[in-house]
Amino acid sequence: MKISLENVLPGEIEKRSFEIITQMLGEKKLKIENEQVIKRVIHTTADFDYADNLCFSPGAVKIFEQALREGACIVTDTQMAKAGINKKSLARFGGEVFCFMSDEDVAHKAKENGTTRASASMDKALNLQCPLIFAIGNAPTALIRLYELIKEEAISPKLIVGVPVGFVNVIQSKELIMQSGVPYIVAKGRKGGSNVAAAICNAVLYSIK
Amino acid sequence: MKISLENVLPGEIEKRSFEIITQMLGEKKLKIENEQVIKRVIHTTADFDYADNLCFSPGAVKIFEQALREGACIVTDTQMAKAGINKKSLARFGGEVFCFMSDEDVAHKAKENGTTRASASMDKALNLQCPLIFAIGNAPTALIRLYELIKEEAISPKLIVGVPVGFVNVIQSKELIMQSGVPYIVAKGRKGGSNVAAAICNAVLYSIK
Repeated sequence: MKISLENVLPGEIEKRSFEIITQMLGEKKLKIENEQVIKRVIHTTADFDYADNLCFSPGAVKIFEQALREGACIVTDTQMAKAGINKKSLARFGGEVFCFMSDEDVAHKAKENGTTRASASMDKALNLQCPLIFAIGNAPTALIRLYELIKEEAISPKLIVGVPVGFVNVIQSKELIMQSGVPYIVAKGRKGGSNVAAAICNAVLYSIK
Repeated sequence: MKISLENVLPGEIEKRSFEIITQMLGEKKLKIENEQVIKRVIHTTADFDYADNLCFSPGAVKIFEQALREGACIVTDTQMAKAGINKKSLARFGGEVFCFMSDEDVAHKAKENGTTRASASMDKALNLQCPLIFAIGNAPTALIRLYELIKEEAISPKLIVGVPVGFVNVIQSKELIMQSGVPYIVAKGRKGGSNVAAAICNAVLYSIK
């Protein structure tokens, strides 16, 4: 079988991809303020379900941008999401990415409390002094713990990216976050992932002029 | 709205997730040798399309296992996939994960040759002395370059995990790999990702007794 490749210069691949995504979205109307986030998630997954799944609290993208401008740090629940977030772009504003999942004290605390490392790593984030964005791409237990900490007024995140993926308490954990009163970007349903979490953060980082 | 959480112990979440995946697959028949890989990818994405998209060359999982047992190294095209692959599990057999995407010499070569860093990073892998598995989760240009290197007999990978995601030459690059004569695990179509690449590698790592 003859395979014919499209001739696109390296520097043009992303632009061409976004053009194709726009074409494929067709008549589908996206809210202009959320468009770049939605398109970047589709770019990362080739999954057009995200055009419907992604839910934004009012002004979420603007709030996210503003927090980053003010030096917010991003806490995530996987090394993969940490690897995927553009740390150079974040550092322009003084922000850093933290993932405590591999920390020994977190493993210890999780065992001690009969919880997950993801949950224990949310508690560790209480020690951070910067404004906080959470980008949760894997563990619903992280979102559930965040919800508890918010309700206890122990933590007040600027925004939560709630896009864990999976089958146990994933849907519920996202519903909790949407009821928490904290601004959010959430992928409703079972889908999500650390790649999706990173793509959302990067889309907002790239949208800041 | 009242949200009720399922009560699952931290150590049981993965098992319970796989049970739900099996339930949700219903009547769908998976080839037994490929089942763990397919289920782990669905576990990572919550996307059941992968039950149909994933294509395996004959005996691919066994070949992959055997290569790992013989100390094969995994070369990937993203830091995210590198972060996601279980390096401890791989190290049991002497293998390592390499990603050359952030290397300065790769950036330089790519610019010089008017190609992508992903493509240039495949050339850099020619210097590795271990048996090689490629796990490509992002860049079709990496697969296209691999195909060229295979045809020039410059490289002879044990197996290629070909799961880039996206819109420019993604489908074609996967077709090329399936015609290359090298054993493969490929996600047909536009879908894939570094999370999918890592999940496939981990599924095989975990299946080795």
